[in-house]
Amino acid sequence: MSIYHQRLQQFRTFLRERLAAQGFIIPRADVYQNEYVVPADERLNWLTGFTGSAGYAVILPEAAALFIDGRYTLQAKQEVDSALYQVFQIPEFDLKIFFERSFQSGDKICFDPWLMTKNDVERWTKVLENFNAEFVPASENPIDVLWHDRPHRPLDAIFSYSEIYAGLSVHNKLDLIIEKLQQFGADVFVCNAPESICWLFNIRGKDFPFSPLIDCFALIYRSSKSEIFIDTRKLTPEIKAALEPYVTFREYGSFSEHLQNIKDIKVLLDPTRAPFWAMMHLDKTSVIWAPDPCLSIKAIKNSTEISGMRLAHVKDGVAVTKFLAWLEQALANNEVLDELSLVARLETFREEQDQYQGPSFSTIAGVAENGAIVHYRPTPESNKKIQGDCLILLDSGGQYLDGTTDITRVIPVGIPTEEQRDRFTRVLKGHIAIATTPFPKGTTGSQLDVLARRPLWQAGLDYDHGTGHGVGCFLSVHEGPQRIGKSPSTVALIPGMILSNEPGYYLEGQYGIRIENLVLVQPTNEPTYQERPMFCFETLTMAPINTRLIVTEMLTAPERQWLNDYHAQVRETLLPHLDTETAAWLIEATEEI
Amino acid sequence: MSIYHQRLQQFRTFLRERLAAQGFIIPRADVYQNEYVVPADERLNWLTGFTGSAGYAVILPEAAALFIDGRYTLQAKQEVDSALYQVFQIPEFDLKIFFERSFQSGDKICFDPWLMTKNDVERWTKVLENFNAEFVPASENPIDVLWHDRPHRPLDAIFSYSEIYAGLSVHNKLDLIIEKLQQFGADVFVCNAPESICWLFNIRGKDFPFSPLIDCFALIYRSSKSEIFIDTRKLTPEIKAALEPYVTFREYGSFSEHLQNIKDIKVLLDPTRAPFWAMMHLDKTSVIWAPDPCLSIKAIKNSTEISGMRLAHVKDGVAVTKFLAWLEQALANNEVLDELSLVARLETFREEQDQYQGPSFSTIAGVAENGAIVHYRPTPESNKKIQGDCLILLDSGGQYLDGTTDITRVIPVGIPTEEQRDRFTRVLKGHIAIATTPFPKGTTGSQLDVLARRPLWQAGLDYDHGTGHGVGCFLSVHEGPQRIGKSPSTVALIPGMILSNEPGYYLEGQYGIRIENLVLVQPTNEPTYQERPMFCFETLTMAPINTRLIVTEMLTAPERQWLNDYHAQVRETLLPHLDTETAAWLIEATEEI
Repeated sequence: MSIYHQRLQQFRTFLRERLAAQGFIIPRADVYQNEYVVPADERLNWLTGFTGSAGYAVILPEAAALFIDGRYTLQAKQEVDSALYQVFQIPEFDLKIFFERSFQSGDKICFDPWLMTKNDVERWTKVLENFNAEFVPASENPIDVLWHDRPHRPLDAIFSYSEIYAGLSVHNKLDLIIEKLQQFGADVFVCNAPESICWLFNIRGKDFPFSPLIDCFALIYRSSKSEIFIDTRKLTPEIKAALEPYVTFREYGSFSEHLQNIKDIKVLLDPTRAPFWAMMHLDKTSVIWAPDPCLSIKAIKNSTEISGMRLAHVKDGVAVTKFLAWLEQALANNEVLDELSLVARLETFREEQDQYQGPSFSTIAGVAENGAIVHYRPTPESNKKIQGDCLILLDSGGQYLDGTTDITRVIPVGIPTEEQRDRFTRVLKGHIAIATTPFPKGTTGSQLDVLARRPLWQAGLDYDHGTGHGVGCFLSVHEGPQRIGKSPSTVALIPGMILSNEPGYYLEGQYGIRIENLVLVQPTNEPTYQERPMFCFETLTMAPINTRLIVTEMLTAPERQWLNDYHAQVRETLLPHLDTETAAWLIEATEEI
Repeated sequence: MSIYHQRLQQFRTFLRERLAAQGFIIPRADVYQNEYVVPADERLNWLTGFTGSAGYAVILPEAAALFIDGRYTLQAKQEVDSALYQVFQIPEFDLKIFFERSFQSGDKICFDPWLMTKNDVERWTKVLENFNAEFVPASENPIDVLWHDRPHRPLDAIFSYSEIYAGLSVHNKLDLIIEKLQQFGADVFVCNAPESICWLFNIRGKDFPFSPLIDCFALIYRSSKSEIFIDTRKLTPEIKAALEPYVTFREYGSFSEHLQNIKDIKVLLDPTRAPFWAMMHLDKTSVIWAPDPCLSIKAIKNSTEISGMRLAHVKDGVAVTKFLAWLEQALANNEVLDELSLVARLETFREEQDQYQGPSFSTIAGVAENGAIVHYRPTPESNKKIQGDCLILLDSGGQYLDGTTDITRVIPVGIPTEEQRDRFTRVLKGHIAIATTPFPKGTTGSQLDVLARRPLWQAGLDYDHGTGHGVGCFLSVHEGPQRIGKSPSTVALIPGMILSNEPGYYLEGQYGIRIENLVLVQPTNEPTYQERPMFCFETLTMAPINTRLIVTEMLTAPERQWLNDYHAQVRETLLPHLDTETAAWLIEATEEI
């Protein structure tokens, strides 16, 4: 019996005997609702084997299912035992069908109230009501009991993030947040968002993979010192001294007790983020539901952060360009290369750069058909050699003290097919449409999304992921509230926001294409725009786009102009930082088309 | 003292003395939440003088305000006495600012629960909570008491709508609706949507302006005969006989009593439509909130309706083309023309067409600066002569037994300016983008909207209205749930849906431009679209677009091709139905560019 089979059996026994329930829903989320979780919180992975960054499992007595989104369709098939779990893609698959098949009327379905938000619980309650099933917070999470060799929570020291990079003092940031709390009529904000805490207090940590975040909670009061709940062994005397005027540090484990003891004051909870547990243990009339007040301020980068992001992108562009030049030479020399060696080599180029702290996410180096797995991550088992004609999709990013990067390039090995060049050119046209279209104040990312897809739609093609996500400044590489995507958004794009621009195309079993630059929302200075305040995107990422994959005749004159202008800017920006050999390569790679 | 001043004084006295309230909110809506209301329901107009189709007034002891949207900014300024009402444009103006200025904490603000929906009331309650004001259903509507010379409700006979046009029998439609009721677990649907009742029972009436709807309510039961509440003097023996198996007719005035008597069964209410009054008088546990089950079925036209809509568009195209040819000749002959004479002349051409029943809305004939008033309607006072060089914006539509039309064309008088031609060409490019872009199954109208605006955005321009609305088949010219617009929509476009495609541009005080055709959602038969089920729009409207307004060099080759193909199709379709003179004009008007 496989380990996952054993765990599922134990889980079901626990469900029956200890919770007297018929089902349990296990999200991938941790108590922070973050993309990256510490190893001790990899509950969905422990139970099912699935390593994707989003999804949930539903365990019933006779059936079990894993629900994932389009990014993870192929990956889930590879990772999860289909004898144990049916795997469904949401939203293509209607949840109701699974429940209709598998539910008994009157079932009691449990969840861990620390791992779901009010919005999650309301959504699930509504779905389950259709089947007369109750959705009930569990007194304990079976996985937390059954997982015996569970890793410890991280213990690395936290460090302060200098105002030289942050641009604003803790004092100034707290003023902004307190003003927001006043607007909402709240006395305290229950913050379970490590990126908000790190941003607000100008601190960073090494607890999570890829994002310099800290494993902590905070209570941010309107008229007294904030409280941060953290393993206090991680504090240094410097941090304590620097934050002394603003923060009382308390032990991580005492958070729930302190939360329960909040009485007679108004408490702000973010319905998309706060654990349902908080709502269960607070007086309902004291709760004010409103978005995390840090979110909208953090999303709009200040001028110091913008300068830092620009600098980080120059350094990252140097690293990526050196890598691309090296790769072309290595391929010409018939060196034996595979996905993992590409990842390692790229990392060495980034490590040469000042203030580099590590990758901002697990590098996606997808050779040939592996490139079609949208959130692929090469492992020793999946690691593919570069052989014959193929495309390499390389999506990577760096954390620099001055900013965070995220870039995708496609490299053709040998001769790309006509179809690949057609698809690449369509993706490029979509990328350019996003990069160049000005938009009036008030426009949201969901309004712009179609511009990226239209050249693909014109050939009956599309891609199953968003077009752009927000990016933090030496914080999470994925941050809200802004995004570009199909699903409706009411968040207007505002100058200072940074997003990715990353349309793609994927042919299962064959190849993947994605072109990704980060862009900064800017007011336009076009003098002819007199009627409306207009904004546009400025591209921050600096690295050549492979022109061997472009069908030039498919580009309009302005599109060709954009590419040539972009390449001229890349050349001008990077050349001073490159060795002679790489410089020569870049000049050739960015020749006008 | 003006009549509106007197009415406002009486209203305030009533508010103070009879309702003991500090405020009242008067929507333009009637009990049906329809765009067109019968004269007896023109409450907002009676009180304020505003004739627009959307808006609301807020009456407070010391202040009064009219809130309208961008379509009515100019019109409201002309119609409403600014000494009595402050006029604000929503959403540009933040409601809160008005309330902050004018409210007292603890105010009691009333509304008529027949004229607001659950969603309306929830929205207002939330807004008013911020000011500690209570939102309370009023026991009587002051206007209903104060309006002494109020018109009677209409009394025209209703008529049956033949299956030849409707395509489905009442029996078949009821089967579909009953299936929906079963899905929702509802026993009865409280229907206050005349267009749903007319559609479901294949009947029409003459009670409302422009839409062939009937002033009635219905209770549609899952397992017994439906009840229609109507002034029974309007029934004919034929209607009674035809609907006898399905419907019991009851007196209009007994609706509220029957509604209150519903007990022990599950009641479906549409939260966007049902009067709040219904919810107040039903047992809360018996209510199921769900969309009107007729909506989604009615929106997807059956093949008979589609054929009818096509036929109607040929006839309408003939009428419009004859009008355009006549107008060009009349202008050449220096005939004295004004907006009202254009409206009258166009109507005579439509009246020549078979099955024509009347205009589908009040024709917008806006000469020069009047064209910039988006929902302008010429009146004897505003009526403008055609003089010198100017643009005429003509937006009109017809109700034919076989279908409903809606078309906008712009006619240049004399020499259009370079700016006007630039703007017209940008609007045309947007129109063509909507007309030609295929989109995958699941796409909503809000996703497509930007395609219509992009060519304007590229010059820092935009327009303050939606890009497209649903259109009924011999029903309302504006119908949901599908639409194309900036605000987020979750309604996917499905083959059989009909929408308008009408981008525009308006320069206040100078001119207006809009190009509007109706389009039908179709599956594409493009053989190269193998990866995804793709849909596209087929243009139904058949009338030439003025080429003197086009800057040909601004069009791409495919855009020029679309225009030439469209004009070739218009020619081919209409020529057999035209007199020699009009035919000659059309051939010239549709020459290739």
